[in-house]
Amino acid sequence: MNKISKAVVSRLPRYYRYLDELRVQKIERISSKELSQMMNVTASQIRQDLNNFGGFGQQGYGYNVQYLYDEIGKLLGLDVCHKMVIVGAGNLGQAIANYGNFKNRGFEITALFDSNPDLIGKKTLNAEIMDIKYLYDYVKANNVEIVALTLPKEPARKIAEQLVECGVKAFWNFAHTDLKFSNDIIVENVHLSESLMKLTYRISEKNNNIES
Amino acid sequence: MNKISKAVVSRLPRYYRYLDELRVQKIERISSKELSQMMNVTASQIRQDLNNFGGFGQQGYGYNVQYLYDEIGKLLGLDVCHKMVIVGAGNLGQAIANYGNFKNRGFEITALFDSNPDLIGKKTLNAEIMDIKYLYDYVKANNVEIVALTLPKEPARKIAEQLVECGVKAFWNFAHTDLKFSNDIIVENVHLSESLMKLTYRISEKNNNIES
Repeated sequence: MNKISKAVVSRLPRYYRYLDELRVQKIERISSKELSQMMNVTASQIRQDLNNFGGFGQQGYGYNVQYLYDEIGKLLGLDVCHKMVIVGAGNLGQAIANYGNFKNRGFEITALFDSNPDLIGKKTLNAEIMDIKYLYDYVKANNVEIVALTLPKEPARKIAEQLVECGVKAFWNFAHTDLKFSNDIIVENVHLSESLMKLTYRISEKNNNIES
Repeated sequence: MNKISKAVVSRLPRYYRYLDELRVQKIERISSKELSQMMNVTASQIRQDLNNFGGFGQQGYGYNVQYLYDEIGKLLGLDVCHKMVIVGAGNLGQAIANYGNFKNRGFEITALFDSNPDLIGKKTLNAEIMDIKYLYDYVKANNVEIVALTLPKEPARKIAEQLVECGVKAFWNFAHTDLKFSNDIIVENVHLSESLMKLTYRISEKNNNIES
């Protein structure tokens, strides 16, 4: 498969979400035009995006919802189970652990880790909070693939570096810092305060336009 | 000011974060080359991005860190205080409310709202959790500018629509749905499970490349 552009990849989860909603509504097929109206993108964008992966649609029929859902799921790697642990069991870590839908979508959260004695032993929906001193042994023993970092930036970098030495290949990083690794290590950042700043940028841009 | 491209806007918060770190380290000036090495982008990209706003730099001197930090802060609308409330006081809502840095960055979280009686009355770092039945009156009475939606998708859409009627102009949307409003209403989405899917896409892309 050719390297797919980041922009296309970033749209796949949204297709997946809309197809899931259609599937739940027992809708069997949909045209690129109907899908485009729902998703507020152009039909030609949808066709182009999906053509990157060989198409999936048939002229005059459109897309089979369940088939397209399954195929995009495979592209997104959701047909295999990904073991994930969460480092940092504060509100954010617990919010992720308690999000019930992850298990249906190919993610298995097997443990959370924290150094706070008040949290250790507490159970979330999917896993227990463990003492962070067991983190590295646990990761090595359990083939953990993804680590979610929901802790402050100062410890995050150092812990991430040690986790790489334990074989972790992917981080879902909520810490307010950039992790710098070789290209071999995958990092997906969620910088919440940066997202909020994009919002306030747009507010002030709008206010400036009204004033000028 | 001309309309700035989304790509440039999306990079501003990251400049702001790095400049903040330099500022904390008492570094007074920095060249685009040094900044580019820290941030792992090209120096020409930095110069181009900042030229959209009139430059800020001086040839042979580079950038004054504090000045550039302040100016980008103004661009991001952080020089004025934005009143925000959070609807949905579960773990995610509380995580946001307890993030202490928001107040220093121009955001004031004045209340959280939930329908769960076990949560109502509980205090977070910055605000108290109130009964959701007071939400609309509160928003109208307090000139709330931004509403963070940290609740399931089913109630989110309906509540957001009513909030728009109460004068809310901007949503920071964590609900797993797209809010559809006129262009006048600003929506910044944080779809956490979509971010996680981008991560697993990259994992399977890497695995496929190794196999093929």
